[in-house]
Amino acid sequence: MKKAIFVMGVSGCGKSTIGNLLAKELDIPFFDGDDYHPEANIKKMSSGQALNDNDRQGWLEALNLLAVKQIKESSCVIVCSALKQKYRTILSDTIEDKTEWIHLTGTFNQIFERVNSRADHFMPSALLKSQFDTLENPETAITIDISLTPEEIIKKIKHELMNTSEFGLFGLGVMGKSLCRNLANNGFKISMFNRHVDGIEVDVAKNFKAQYSELSQAQAFDDISEFVNSLQQPRRIMLMVNAGKTIDYVIEDLLPHLSENDIIIDGGNSNYKKTKERYDYLKAKGIRFIGTGVSGGEEGALKGPSIMPSGDKDAYDKVAPFLETISAKDKNGLPCCTYVGPEGSGQFIKMVHNGVEYVEMQLLAEVSTILEALGQNPDGISQTLESWKNSANSYLLEITTSIFKKKEGNDWLVNKILDKAGNKGTGNWTTIASAELGVPSTLISSALFSRYISFYKEERLQLSELIETENTSELNITTNAVLEAYQFARIINHYQGFKLISEASIKFEWNLNLSEIARIWTNGCIIRSTLMEELVSIFKETTNILTNTELIEQVKQLKPSAKKVVSQCLLNDLTTPALSEAIQFLNGITTKYASANVIQAQRDYFGAHTYLRLDDPSGKPHHTNWV
Amino acid sequence: MKKAIFVMGVSGCGKSTIGNLLAKELDIPFFDGDDYHPEANIKKMSSGQALNDNDRQGWLEALNLLAVKQIKESSCVIVCSALKQKYRTILSDTIEDKTEWIHLTGTFNQIFERVNSRADHFMPSALLKSQFDTLENPETAITIDISLTPEEIIKKIKHELMNTSEFGLFGLGVMGKSLCRNLANNGFKISMFNRHVDGIEVDVAKNFKAQYSELSQAQAFDDISEFVNSLQQPRRIMLMVNAGKTIDYVIEDLLPHLSENDIIIDGGNSNYKKTKERYDYLKAKGIRFIGTGVSGGEEGALKGPSIMPSGDKDAYDKVAPFLETISAKDKNGLPCCTYVGPEGSGQFIKMVHNGVEYVEMQLLAEVSTILEALGQNPDGISQTLESWKNSANSYLLEITTSIFKKKEGNDWLVNKILDKAGNKGTGNWTTIASAELGVPSTLISSALFSRYISFYKEERLQLSELIETENTSELNITTNAVLEAYQFARIINHYQGFKLISEASIKFEWNLNLSEIARIWTNGCIIRSTLMEELVSIFKETTNILTNTELIEQVKQLKPSAKKVVSQCLLNDLTTPALSEAIQFLNGITTKYASANVIQAQRDYFGAHTYLRLDDPSGKPHHTNWV
Repeated sequence: MKKAIFVMGVSGCGKSTIGNLLAKELDIPFFDGDDYHPEANIKKMSSGQALNDNDRQGWLEALNLLAVKQIKESSCVIVCSALKQKYRTILSDTIEDKTEWIHLTGTFNQIFERVNSRADHFMPSALLKSQFDTLENPETAITIDISLTPEEIIKKIKHELMNTSEFGLFGLGVMGKSLCRNLANNGFKISMFNRHVDGIEVDVAKNFKAQYSELSQAQAFDDISEFVNSLQQPRRIMLMVNAGKTIDYVIEDLLPHLSENDIIIDGGNSNYKKTKERYDYLKAKGIRFIGTGVSGGEEGALKGPSIMPSGDKDAYDKVAPFLETISAKDKNGLPCCTYVGPEGSGQFIKMVHNGVEYVEMQLLAEVSTILEALGQNPDGISQTLESWKNSANSYLLEITTSIFKKKEGNDWLVNKILDKAGNKGTGNWTTIASAELGVPSTLISSALFSRYISFYKEERLQLSELIETENTSELNITTNAVLEAYQFARIINHYQGFKLISEASIKFEWNLNLSEIARIWTNGCIIRSTLMEELVSIFKETTNILTNTELIEQVKQLKPSAKKVVSQCLLNDLTTPALSEAIQFLNGITTKYASANVIQAQRDYFGAHTYLRLDDPSGKPHHTNWV
Repeated sequence: MKKAIFVMGVSGCGKSTIGNLLAKELDIPFFDGDDYHPEANIKKMSSGQALNDNDRQGWLEALNLLAVKQIKESSCVIVCSALKQKYRTILSDTIEDKTEWIHLTGTFNQIFERVNSRADHFMPSALLKSQFDTLENPETAITIDISLTPEEIIKKIKHELMNTSEFGLFGLGVMGKSLCRNLANNGFKISMFNRHVDGIEVDVAKNFKAQYSELSQAQAFDDISEFVNSLQQPRRIMLMVNAGKTIDYVIEDLLPHLSENDIIIDGGNSNYKKTKERYDYLKAKGIRFIGTGVSGGEEGALKGPSIMPSGDKDAYDKVAPFLETISAKDKNGLPCCTYVGPEGSGQFIKMVHNGVEYVEMQLLAEVSTILEALGQNPDGISQTLESWKNSANSYLLEITTSIFKKKEGNDWLVNKILDKAGNKGTGNWTTIASAELGVPSTLISSALFSRYISFYKEERLQLSELIETENTSELNITTNAVLEAYQFARIINHYQGFKLISEASIKFEWNLNLSEIARIWTNGCIIRSTLMEELVSIFKETTNILTNTELIEQVKQLKPSAKKVVSQCLLNDLTTPALSEAIQFLNGITTKYASANVIQAQRDYFGAHTYLRLDDPSGKPHHTNWV
């Protein structure tokens, strides 16, 4: 990557000497910032007057323009005192991520003597004190002590510039490895770490580096200190380790090696409440923390995942160039990565993403059960699903189409898989969050509990002998009705998922942008689909998709088939909890007068919990002696 | 209550003198234990030999017999050194809760001088040292310093005996007040506390005491220190305050006033994890903690609730006489109160009780929706429910019958109640516990989420305008089919509730007795029913009610109606999520080969999560390159 290397520091620190040497050593152009001062500035300085910020504005802009133009061709060294942050902001405008700061530092006395020995300089050394007063130490520079010899200084700068990575990846599991290759493929200089466990995890990073040519420039470590020291400051370290306690252990292992303002990015499926706790914990220690959802599985991580980072906006800005580059791109070419919101919100929406994913998977499982009952073999099911791509395409539909096609010998592989579904906690957390926040995410809990039921395999076998199912009639439905039921349930699923996000956003004051969330879910992630693409624009107008005219029409048109399919499945002992619950939910949420009045009466009867009255808008609680 | 008052202490402490004075003052018989020694013991003692425990056995048993007989007539004072706990255990055998220990204490020198001044005593004072060595201080005595004058001692004992309450009730809300009256009606001497809040809660306890004649002997307080000091040790203090943080604040307020081995009973709907934390916290401070569920509402608390205490068994034994007396009684006259298990288990089963209750209430709400759609007005619904008592009686059915009858002017009251259902957290917790423990409690989450949906009243009104329901056909079901669907769903509900308890019992090693839990739920509590009575014996043979032959028959016989009712409701846009889910669940749990294989294939496809194979019993994970 081409870079603008600014050598900065107070007058007399040796910027020009070092800058020149460095440019020669790196074989890149050298520019002395002072050469770009307008005549007026030079006169003012020669007369012993300090420049004010107005004097400097145009000059700094000119240097910025120089850098922007130059790095299109090659890297370059530019010398400029750049004492204040606001000067540096102008100098690096639009090229923040391609700018390196080298700060030459020394004591007042050291520099005072040096300045006084320079007869040809046009700035009187009396101004040095004001230079020190003005200096705001840069946050992210390579800092060099000028008491070293020029040779040592050049060697040190070269080492820091050449041998430091821009981004660190901690944990080389399936996802971590894929992200490393993705970063490297995008030209980023990375460091990769995997722990050493005798006889179990040995030279993981080294072996991984040797395996892929794109990693030739990457650095591989199994020593935490060396890994951390190989990174440019502020360090960006992305954790791809098991969620849970491991994250806390890793943070503790890293902490002694980190410097203020370093950034840790947790890319795992951490609980959003824990992310908030870790954010607070690290903030108190001066370390910035970004919790981000990453979706796309192994392939997505390699070719471009959907990324959902949250935390402080300024920390996000430091990692955005990396995350946005490696992320998937939406149909307009924009990154499927956006700043989601305050700490925890990224992990929250990833959790809901996974909840929605649970339901989409469950619906496809139910649909295949029905198609099988309609007499289709796996090839037939695959063909049916294939034909649905026109009207209801999604990544999960696509892979399920492939799954049903896959053969092993003469039989289909899917028929050989044990019917006990696993889960890694996010569906479970989504159900818990729904219960805690008072939001009825019925489909997510239905999908979760279906996995749980499947897990009771031994009990199912026992009970299936004791309570046999009776197919009382023929299944009287068309394949197209099944498709419509599926589409119907998917709309309800997306309604519920975004409802949960929107209620959490209100409750936690996250101010989330539902349209942006839908947009970063249109590519790279597991729940990408044509429906998700529709939602991007729908959420620009409403937070409740069931108020959108087109979706209302779809719901109305699809519901009769959904009713037909589910009632037929009921009568034929086919298990379709999610399809069924989708209808129940829509009926519930469109019920003008629900049966909850009966429940309120019961609660008042046995527990004196009181009730509100339809005819009393004051909201006063009423109690009745019912006996 | 008649009591055996034992005056104890080492030889020479003045037991006989004080015992005599006390008996005269209280006008009850006096017995000197030494008069009951057999001849052999007296000789041995006269010869300067100490008695051994064999010598004492028969003597102590005789004194116990004396006490047991005597307190049938009246209270009495018995003097006996009773130095070891095992002697006292013999002395109070079968009358532990009717025994008072008065321990006279002094220093060795004080007593040595006193013994040497008594010429007529048949025990040489040289044995005093061995008496002190033998003495095991009693855990629960009224302890009296012998340096007081006899008059002062008698006054103090009388005060402690007469003015101390046996049981303290902290927090006089609806439930607390009812429990106070229940305790007082059962002859217990109680102290009642309610905080003072200027202008809001003033003289609550005092006013409450004045309101009911049965409270004439009760003591009323709004000062914590006075309240605690009014209680016999070890103190038994039952908290009936709002669950949550309040409990912790109250515990902190109480702690400075408590003594070692005092017992705090939390009778609120606390979270079972918090109960465990509080148990550990208090144990470290020497205070015993019992978490107990209490069900029955206001009326149950007054006339006899179902009580579910858990904690240490020895602490339970100290409160059992109170809790078992005030609890409801089952059909065999046994208390609906039992030692549930280790800390937290009582609150856990109360939580599940409430989850089951949520479902029972929801089912009745759904059933009434259907009956209304069948053309019945509230009177008609009430009559229908009334007629169901023969086959499916329960407390909740009974009160719902009354609710639908209740008129206000010319209209039924139920029609005037706002259809937004409240909840106080336990249904929510049950759903969370299910999700955490991997147990599919689908009906409880369905009932919880139905309440949540009802709460979105404004959105329901809006959406009901946008997405109108269409009654596509007539509801073609009989009232009897509705009854059978209701019975069917109730069996599934009870299966799921007890499944959650049984899985928690395994996970937390609580060793819970499901039959006993069903038994204490047959009366006093909100979910008492004839079905619960059946479960008492069913759980003696199995932990899974769906393996019980009779219930299997019922399920098979009822399921066709359930299918008919739910499918008809589906086709007619009636909302019946819990009835529907009951069928879905039974189908799921009796499915030999579930569609979870599809989900496992999907997970392996996008996340390399691997899967197990039907044809590989080794349990080795397999991964496929699906593309």
